[in-house]
Amino acid sequence: MLKAGIVGGTGYTGVELLRLLAQHPDVELSAITSRGEAGTPVADMFPSLRGRVDLAFSDPKDAPLDRCDVVFFATPNGIAMQQTRALLDAGVRVIDLAADFRIKDIAVWEKWYGMTHAAPDLVAEAVYGLPEVNREAIRKARLVANPGCYPTAAQLGLLPLIEAGCVDTGNLIADCKSGVSGAGRKVETHILFAEASDNFKAYGVAGHRHLPEIRQGLSIAAGVPVGLTFVPHLTPLIRGIHATLYARVSREEDFQALFERRYAKEPFVDVLPPKSHPETRSVRASNLCRIAVHRPQGGDTLVILSVIDNLTKGAAGQAVQNMNLMFGFDECIALSQVPVLP
Amino acid sequence: MLKAGIVGGTGYTGVELLRLLAQHPDVELSAITSRGEAGTPVADMFPSLRGRVDLAFSDPKDAPLDRCDVVFFATPNGIAMQQTRALLDAGVRVIDLAADFRIKDIAVWEKWYGMTHAAPDLVAEAVYGLPEVNREAIRKARLVANPGCYPTAAQLGLLPLIEAGCVDTGNLIADCKSGVSGAGRKVETHILFAEASDNFKAYGVAGHRHLPEIRQGLSIAAGVPVGLTFVPHLTPLIRGIHATLYARVSREEDFQALFERRYAKEPFVDVLPPKSHPETRSVRASNLCRIAVHRPQGGDTLVILSVIDNLTKGAAGQAVQNMNLMFGFDECIALSQVPVLP
Amino acid sequence: MLKAGIVGGTGYTGVELLRLLAQHPDVELSAITSRGEAGTPVADMFPSLRGRVDLAFSDPKDAPLDRCDVVFFATPNGIAMQQTRALLDAGVRVIDLAADFRIKDIAVWEKWYGMTHAAPDLVAEAVYGLPEVNREAIRKARLVANPGCYPTAAQLGLLPLIEAGCVDTGNLIADCKSGVSGAGRKVETHILFAEASDNFKAYGVAGHRHLPEIRQGLSIAAGVPVGLTFVPHLTPLIRGIHATLYARVSREEDFQALFERRYAKEPFVDVLPPKSHPETRSVRASNLCRIAVHRPQGGDTLVILSVIDNLTKGAAGQAVQNMNLMFGFDECIALSQVPVLP
Amino acid sequence: MLKAGIVGGTGYTGVELLRLLAQHPDVELSAITSRGEAGTPVADMFPSLRGRVDLAFSDPKDAPLDRCDVVFFATPNGIAMQQTRALLDAGVRVIDLAADFRIKDIAVWEKWYGMTHAAPDLVAEAVYGLPEVNREAIRKARLVANPGCYPTAAQLGLLPLIEAGCVDTGNLIADCKSGVSGAGRKVETHILFAEASDNFKAYGVAGHRHLPEIRQGLSIAAGVPVGLTFVPHLTPLIRGIHATLYARVSREEDFQALFERRYAKEPFVDVLPPKSHPETRSVRASNLCRIAVHRPQGGDTLVILSVIDNLTKGAAGQAVQNMNLMFGFDECIALSQVPVLP
Repeated sequence: MLKAGIVGGTGYTGVELLRLLAQHPDVELSAITSRGEAGTPVADMFPSLRGRVDLAFSDPKDAPLDRCDVVFFATPNGIAMQQTRALLDAGVRVIDLAADFRIKDIAVWEKWYGMTHAAPDLVAEAVYGLPEVNREAIRKARLVANPGCYPTAAQLGLLPLIEAGCVDTGNLIADCKSGVSGAGRKVETHILFAEASDNFKAYGVAGHRHLPEIRQGLSIAAGVPVGLTFVPHLTPLIRGIHATLYARVSREEDFQALFERRYAKEPFVDVLPPKSHPETRSVRASNLCRIAVHRPQGGDTLVILSVIDNLTKGAAGQAVQNMNLMFGFDECIALSQVPVLP
Repeated sequence: MLKAGIVGGTGYTGVELLRLLAQHPDVELSAITSRGEAGTPVADMFPSLRGRVDLAFSDPKDAPLDRCDVVFFATPNGIAMQQTRALLDAGVRVIDLAADFRIKDIAVWEKWYGMTHAAPDLVAEAVYGLPEVNREAIRKARLVANPGCYPTAAQLGLLPLIEAGCVDTGNLIADCKSGVSGAGRKVETHILFAEASDNFKAYGVAGHRHLPEIRQGLSIAAGVPVGLTFVPHLTPLIRGIHATLYARVSREEDFQALFERRYAKEPFVDVLPPKSHPETRSVRASNLCRIAVHRPQGGDTLVILSVIDNLTKGAAGQAVQNMNLMFGFDECIALSQVPVLP
Repeated sequence: MLKAGIVGGTGYTGVELLRLLAQHPDVELSAITSRGEAGTPVADMFPSLRGRVDLAFSDPKDAPLDRCDVVFFATPNGIAMQQTRALLDAGVRVIDLAADFRIKDIAVWEKWYGMTHAAPDLVAEAVYGLPEVNREAIRKARLVANPGCYPTAAQLGLLPLIEAGCVDTGNLIADCKSGVSGAGRKVETHILFAEASDNFKAYGVAGHRHLPEIRQGLSIAAGVPVGLTFVPHLTPLIRGIHATLYARVSREEDFQALFERRYAKEPFVDVLPPKSHPETRSVRASNLCRIAVHRPQGGDTLVILSVIDNLTKGAAGQAVQNMNLMFGFDECIALSQVPVLP
Repeated sequence: MLKAGIVGGTGYTGVELLRLLAQHPDVELSAITSRGEAGTPVADMFPSLRGRVDLAFSDPKDAPLDRCDVVFFATPNGIAMQQTRALLDAGVRVIDLAADFRIKDIAVWEKWYGMTHAAPDLVAEAVYGLPEVNREAIRKARLVANPGCYPTAAQLGLLPLIEAGCVDTGNLIADCKSGVSGAGRKVETHILFAEASDNFKAYGVAGHRHLPEIRQGLSIAAGVPVGLTFVPHLTPLIRGIHATLYARVSREEDFQALFERRYAKEPFVDVLPPKSHPETRSVRASNLCRIAVHRPQGGDTLVILSVIDNLTKGAAGQAVQNMNLMFGFDECIALSQVPVLP
């Protein structure tokens, strides 16, 4: 049995990790930490886990994290970069669900995240955990930077076009809509039910932290820096991201076939038939990304629709997928639940 | 592999059955019928099932239902009573998720359902499929009448009190709230999003079909006819039933201990600690019923809170639980998913 | 023009007061205070008020409240009791939307609210602001205790029966469901969108502060202390309260006619025809209470359904109704908007 | 008093018209027709109107429409074009809330709406009822084609840029999100609560009927045909449209000042300060359009955010605004309600 630890398990990515790991036959949950909730049984905070997770939250300083095989950071940004080295030195492999190791350019990271980076060398070592791009490197990685939710949906939708060199990479648009759980389990006014329900708004139009992450991934694929406009929107869903992606054709191609080919062997990417409109609920509580390829009126603008569950493929599910790869398990273990619909 | 058929699979109980059976290691789905959708791949109607269910809907008259081991009716009321005898004669065991075989008193059934019953003798044979009451009979049954959603939540919350004879059975109240999926996947105005969202109302106060079903179950337990006021409410949830049950104490008892004892060995009934308030989401997409026992201000009125997912423990999950019992499988197979929260 | 002030205008009752007062032709808004937001234009916090309310929040100590004709307290409990005397002494009339002056029995208040009362003599003077009961006293009052939201819905639904002496007052049940705005604009985890959406739960079953308030009102009407079980539930609505009220008949009566007679002249109470089921949205954003009277299967238990908008008739609308009465305006001014449906 | 009639009042635009007209001091509602509901009191179908609208639906053939001063068509497409001429001949002025008279090019209309047009000459006469563009013509019009909901939000957001000639009109993108009431009060599966709630999807990507309407309006402003990609999305809101509009700068300009200048005198268009993110609820149940102007990272792509209530400024409110103009009333009468928030 693989021993797994979770640092910071009181948020939504934490409880989603617990939901998935509790159903993993080869993983034993060794510790889950929370400074504020030390001593509280996990199932008292998350009654959905009653009878399935018997652990209590433990204080970070008491938790036997260095005796784990793998530790997940489900913490705010800036925590993992301080604690990862000690864990790696103890032989523990680390998956960070926050953003500490996602951006290779330290100056860019420090600008967008407003902190000095505590472990730039580990950034260099970290593997960006998008299995559809980096599967082999993930298998061998000691440290995986689990992608953000918007970046997962946007990159999976745009990468086939960019890799094939058939769109104008100078002028990409990602109009993305996220469920409210994407904002975390924080007590902030704007995500109260009476504020976010029956309401829709854009936010962060001037600049959102996922912009440099998406741009980095696309630029690597393009071989040159891409131009990207990214607009996130808060949507009255609990779970779900819908990315509506716009790209101008620069070279003709059978775009439907391109996507089908690109993802033919991917267990968690489903390219829908032509003319489809994927719904977020068709991936609810699952690790799937469903994609549809459109070219309205045969014009120059492609419209790619890409949906994921922000807590699963956009966070905890992808982290478990990465863990499965790192430890030689079948990639789909604990991730094969059928989406919950309705 | 057990061969299973579903009659009428285009509604919410149908897709929930498919979700659960697709994850059952010992069941092979042989046929799913729909008059209106014959030929349509199931996954075209329910994209959540893409890659998991390869069947297409077949016309009822062509489907090889009589070669199945078990057939589920996920049809409107009045269908199963016409087709069940032929299936039983062919050696097929039947689980009806509609109401055709739930009410033992044919006259009562005909009054509430407004039809002449086509198979009164099968009503006599049918076992009411609430495993917490009839487990042994279910194991041997050829025909199981799967309980309604409100009746499941209400009976599980009231039965311990009635069996123990410690409340006034002449004056019980069940104030129940249901998610909108409980109304089915019908095109009716009042369940449109723009009607049911951000809205709350009671309905059927003069008399709802689940009233005689709850009353029958409680009366059997009481040994005498019970007096019950049942008020259902439409709630802007997709899934979930919350029953708030009121009963007057007629004999003192440690009520918390009574419930814990009654359900100690039940895999799908979870009695919460004192002072708890179960949330519907704590059982979302799972087969669990969670119950809390209250006695406000130490007065004479007990308040029992009982929550289920109306599509799972209130319909398809309980049907699979019954199937597991009927065919000697572990009762929990395909029903052990952790509830989806948030 | 009447000069009005609001103390504590950053919550939902505050913004609702502003919405209504901004449409009142005879009222001029003089000051609105907030310790935390002093200097912020009101319309920056509530963009719905852009172009309609030009005031900025002012610090409580700077605000010219003593030069107002009327001051509304839209504050947490415990504030109004400290500031009301000075305002009354300055000739200002006061309407408290919190609970400071609602409960006549100081010991009961102190037990349920966990504070020592700062102005017991003002409690004696205060008029409970339910116009359907105390209209004449409200006209003359210096100090009005504006009722709570649940108490408004529950009392309007039960008072006709109790005043007529035709139900058992020892055993009343109020099963109440509230939209999430009823919990206020506080940053608490359980009212986050991702917690409260697609979820339903009871809370405060052991005892909620509105219990003694409802009991007081009903007991005054009954002339004896009543027995009441009150169970509130959190419902995924923004606005709306639905009270489902149960009472046992002790004396026969034409109950429909009784309600119609009782409220014949009330501008804001609408008794629906027999067999109706009022929806919360039928009163959304309006000051109406709609009531339906049921007697299921002609039995002994009456079921009364009563709906209000918790922010309007349950708070700010009723406060404006009281203000209209106190200052001799037509009772309906600024309160005649048609409910917003859908 | 102006006599107004409504043809087809059982949908959401119908009930919204009723809500607004019931509050208009100079309008008397003379008739409202519905083939299916003739004889039913309007307030029985829409209880929000109890006590405010006393009319019953009347059969179209019996209704005294030709004695009205103005008739609104709140019907499906294809009805108004058959009945308008007779009304005009009788001296009645007509406002069509459907699409019959919106598209000047009959061939385009017939292609997108799949019908032969019954009154092409009236299309030529009809004035497109966007007051911000055609105010003077509307004043004199006998026949007004009330704009669609998406077209209102999209045109108001893009027109200032196009009129000023400072963006590339060959490559505009309108990514639009609509509440579910925009789909009408039809019984279709995909707008059921259990389908549309907690779900998000694009639809009509291959081509939506509002595309030619938006394109027509923008092309008139540009003086040349524009290139537009339009993607609508179904969002779990009751009311509200959020248009996220993308345009490439072709000539430098102070874009914020441009918008402020363009709409300085418009009573229903509110240009927000820089860096704002308008929320749909900030215009809920009001006739306002709020707009924010963004230029992320100072790049070449402008992002304009434009929100309306689809039933008010996007339908019935704009129709009343047009009626006010046509009959010489103050443009804002019956349209000055403060938006309902929360």
